[in-house]
Amino acid sequence: MDSLDLLIKNLSKLPGVGKKSASRIAYYLLGSQRGFNETLGLEIMEIQDRIHPCPECGNYTEDDICHICSSLSRDRSILCVVEQPQDVLTIDSTGEFHGLFHVINGVLSPLDGIGPEELQLGRLAERVKKNSIEEIIIATNPTLEGDSTALFIAQMFKESAISITRIASGIPVGGDFEYADKLSISRAFKGRREL
Amino acid sequence: MDSLDLLIKNLSKLPGVGKKSASRIAYYLLGSQRGFNETLGLEIMEIQDRIHPCPECGNYTEDDICHICSSLSRDRSILCVVEQPQDVLTIDSTGEFHGLFHVINGVLSPLDGIGPEELQLGRLAERVKKNSIEEIIIATNPTLEGDSTALFIAQMFKESAISITRIASGIPVGGDFEYADKLSISRAFKGRREL
Repeated sequence: MDSLDLLIKNLSKLPGVGKKSASRIAYYLLGSQRGFNETLGLEIMEIQDRIHPCPECGNYTEDDICHICSSLSRDRSILCVVEQPQDVLTIDSTGEFHGLFHVINGVLSPLDGIGPEELQLGRLAERVKKNSIEEIIIATNPTLEGDSTALFIAQMFKESAISITRIASGIPVGGDFEYADKLSISRAFKGRREL
Repeated sequence: MDSLDLLIKNLSKLPGVGKKSASRIAYYLLGSQRGFNETLGLEIMEIQDRIHPCPECGNYTEDDICHICSSLSRDRSILCVVEQPQDVLTIDSTGEFHGLFHVINGVLSPLDGIGPEELQLGRLAERVKKNSIEEIIIATNPTLEGDSTALFIAQMFKESAISITRIASGIPVGGDFEYADKLSISRAFKGRREL
């Protein structure tokens, strides 16, 4: 049963899908409506042809410019820098941020050979220069690499009049001290605010 | 972003894949090697063309007759009746059973309109008659429907000299072969009793 084994092997490469889930999905596909398999297979084959990064911000889009960059109701003076395209969707779905985004597609990681050129930080500087940006919110993940990248970007603009901010990190809402790590608790204390 | 939403919607129809996992998989596919998406997409589209039920036993196969039915080293006097094709793989991988299989593709469920005709139990009787079967091991899941189906099959052959057995406990009641460990399956085979 080579075809089935191959399908299971490739399905198990997907994130969050182990060997057992892959096998379950494969048998589901064997027993499913033929039309469903054809649709899903074609969608997977064509997704990269249909969707491409927005040339302005790097968010995924089917149009020339993504719906956020082309929106007339966004505040064009604030730029939120994120690591990945999916972060745009996550942040935008909160309805908390009304500015524009900039996706850098990764974080600085010298050991993996990822420097400022790989993240095209020059493009970020250029974009900031060309538009009248007043604030840059750096929303990279609060990890070691995300923090270094945030510091690097802050350095890039320290001579300018632009306000550079970093998202707060601490204990998540609904979280519990009992399960929080020391670093998050430390951050929560350092980032405390007047009530 | 309609294509992405459609892909996420269809991915989340797969068993064990929720909306969040589907979205994670979709973004993974957007960022993956083009060749991977083409391979996986094609495999999903073609799986039902490549693999079909074995005309003898109902197990999935790429060949005319499945590798178990065509094997010369199996005991052709013992038949193991299972609900689904994937149960064949699960049971066979224990190395505990050396006979042949018969997949009935479901269980009796009058409320869902699934009777003996839908499970093609006539085909089972025919197969048993044509070949010199000495024992039928009924390995339907130990659920209410699986047990009723086992009893029904036992009734079908009660006039014959064939020994009808049912797999023993070892698999928790209400459980499913798909999630059972090999030891439980092995115990179930060793502890089978006359019906």
